[in-house]
Amino acid sequence: MWPTLTWWPGIDDATEKTMRLSDLGEFELIDLITHHQPDAHGRLLKGIGDDCAVIDGGGNSATLITVDTMVEGVHFSLETSTPEGLGAKLLAVNLSDIAAMGGTPTEVFLAISASPDSDATIIERMVGGLQTSGARFGVQLAGGDTTATDGPLVLSLTAVGACPVDEVVYRSGAVPGDAVYVTGTPGDSAAGLAVSKGVDGVTPAYREMLLRRHLRPEPRVEAGRDLSTRKVASSMIDVSDGLGGDLRHICRASGVDMVIDPDRLPISEALGAFCDTSGQNPIDMVLGGGEDYELAFTTCKHNFAVEASFECRLSYIGTVTEGVGEVRIGTVGSSQRYEKKGFDHYSR
Amino acid sequence: MWPTLTWWPGIDDATEKTMRLSDLGEFELIDLITHHQPDAHGRLLKGIGDDCAVIDGGGNSATLITVDTMVEGVHFSLETSTPEGLGAKLLAVNLSDIAAMGGTPTEVFLAISASPDSDATIIERMVGGLQTSGARFGVQLAGGDTTATDGPLVLSLTAVGACPVDEVVYRSGAVPGDAVYVTGTPGDSAAGLAVSKGVDGVTPAYREMLLRRHLRPEPRVEAGRDLSTRKVASSMIDVSDGLGGDLRHICRASGVDMVIDPDRLPISEALGAFCDTSGQNPIDMVLGGGEDYELAFTTCKHNFAVEASFECRLSYIGTVTEGVGEVRIGTVGSSQRYEKKGFDHYSR
Repeated sequence: MWPTLTWWPGIDDATEKTMRLSDLGEFELIDLITHHQPDAHGRLLKGIGDDCAVIDGGGNSATLITVDTMVEGVHFSLETSTPEGLGAKLLAVNLSDIAAMGGTPTEVFLAISASPDSDATIIERMVGGLQTSGARFGVQLAGGDTTATDGPLVLSLTAVGACPVDEVVYRSGAVPGDAVYVTGTPGDSAAGLAVSKGVDGVTPAYREMLLRRHLRPEPRVEAGRDLSTRKVASSMIDVSDGLGGDLRHICRASGVDMVIDPDRLPISEALGAFCDTSGQNPIDMVLGGGEDYELAFTTCKHNFAVEASFECRLSYIGTVTEGVGEVRIGTVGSSQRYEKKGFDHYSR
Repeated sequence: MWPTLTWWPGIDDATEKTMRLSDLGEFELIDLITHHQPDAHGRLLKGIGDDCAVIDGGGNSATLITVDTMVEGVHFSLETSTPEGLGAKLLAVNLSDIAAMGGTPTEVFLAISASPDSDATIIERMVGGLQTSGARFGVQLAGGDTTATDGPLVLSLTAVGACPVDEVVYRSGAVPGDAVYVTGTPGDSAAGLAVSKGVDGVTPAYREMLLRRHLRPEPRVEAGRDLSTRKVASSMIDVSDGLGGDLRHICRASGVDMVIDPDRLPISEALGAFCDTSGQNPIDMVLGGGEDYELAFTTCKHNFAVEASFECRLSYIGTVTEGVGEVRIGTVGSSQRYEKKGFDHYSR
């Protein structure tokens, strides 16, 4: 889903000459699109600018809606993904957005644009993988659209979820003094992507684990609901574009800074082994990777006793401070600004 | 949105050899995808098989959701559409599905897959056209996703609407004896498409009217709500794939036949003039055209006094009879089966 940023290049620049999307960048395009957008009103509690839109359903019920698209050759290759795995990942990417607001996913809608020359069984197996995975989460495929294209396979999934209004967790609730946490071990997915492209040198077991983390991410639906119903999280986001860049979305939405302690970042054994053989910096991989589909959140309940009771690993990685929307790396008092942007679809 | 049909080619056939989508056809693909789909349950009042999915929101409130995709080179060309018009049409196509269930559209979500070489101002103008048109209907752009592709521009819109549960109009409610109605003048859009491709011979005024009907369809949101709140319609569908094929969806969902009187089909002056000069049969254009975004519905209130009070033209075109899901052309007692399939994205 689209975040919103507070800066964008002047529309005058864009109209004076042809400005290509690759000149502009994805986040600037989103701002260009959304800067005329009226504020949320009526039953729309949150529009553009979080993991999901939040629609007031009356009483204490809210409907969460999010959209994510995967394009062949950009987000997936049928040479490295099975069709079933692709369908499961498409679902996971969307459910992760529902999880990041604290919601329970309920229905999904699938738009398929495929070449008439496509193998029909690939489409059927992809949808089958999506449905099988959906059944595990109680999610139904409730509709869709099928169109022809002479371009790559494009899969766009809309996910719908439910959450009590007073349990929805936004990006904007972080306050100075909060602790910053992340689930699981970000960075594995980026290493898995490298492995899928032929980077080698790790043991078969690590290789398989990293590939699985990239190709079959597990959305943190249960953890998201747990954090939401226990009122633990003051803000939350799903880690899809790289932990550092996604934490910055929380900082900007909340009007705070964060100081992230690099020594506290969770590094899986497999990622450590991958970095040993490939020469990559594991901290860079954890902060800048992408496609992790973990949850990052802030909480005033530092060292909260529930840590051990969560179904997944939780790591305390830093502190929210007063600030202007920056992520800083180091310790409070000795830190430098994190610079890497999140993944930009239009950067080259 | 996906309809469902009751027939589909055996999965065994599909697995024995590579079956391309163009061999299979769009509706068979949809069946292949959906035949394992569990029935709607829990809060899903209607899943695949109508213009929208219908989700129970508690009390008497329902949420309607539909998805439609437009692909450059298949559904539109930026040589004949302005970007603003394209955005408005994308919205109209989706709102027409909400209208066909009797709902009020509320929010939309836009997934854009565009080449990094795309002109950013075209995307901005397209979204601007969607937002301007949305404002007329009280509809907000509440989120979306932006992805890169090296293929054609793909725009997928998810529309959300609201309707009291007891006012939702399905495809499945037609009963023998009901009258069949259609709004507006179907066929104009297909003539407008031909005109946009260079077929000529009509006056500039007719030409402009037909082009507008193709490029800037007006979704029948007010008429749909009116038919729904007054409990006039027993079944309803939006006319997007050709009136004859879409009426057949009602027949199959309702388990009835229809006899459509060709002499009663509404033919606009502009379509008449187009057919005079191009040699096309106006009845074929009305029944087989496509992209009309009119509403077809059935009602037990034949000659109902409200006809004159609707904001758009309503035409009584036929009668529902007992049957097996066929549309027949003629009069009761002397009719022949309508054969043309609706628009199939994968047919060649």
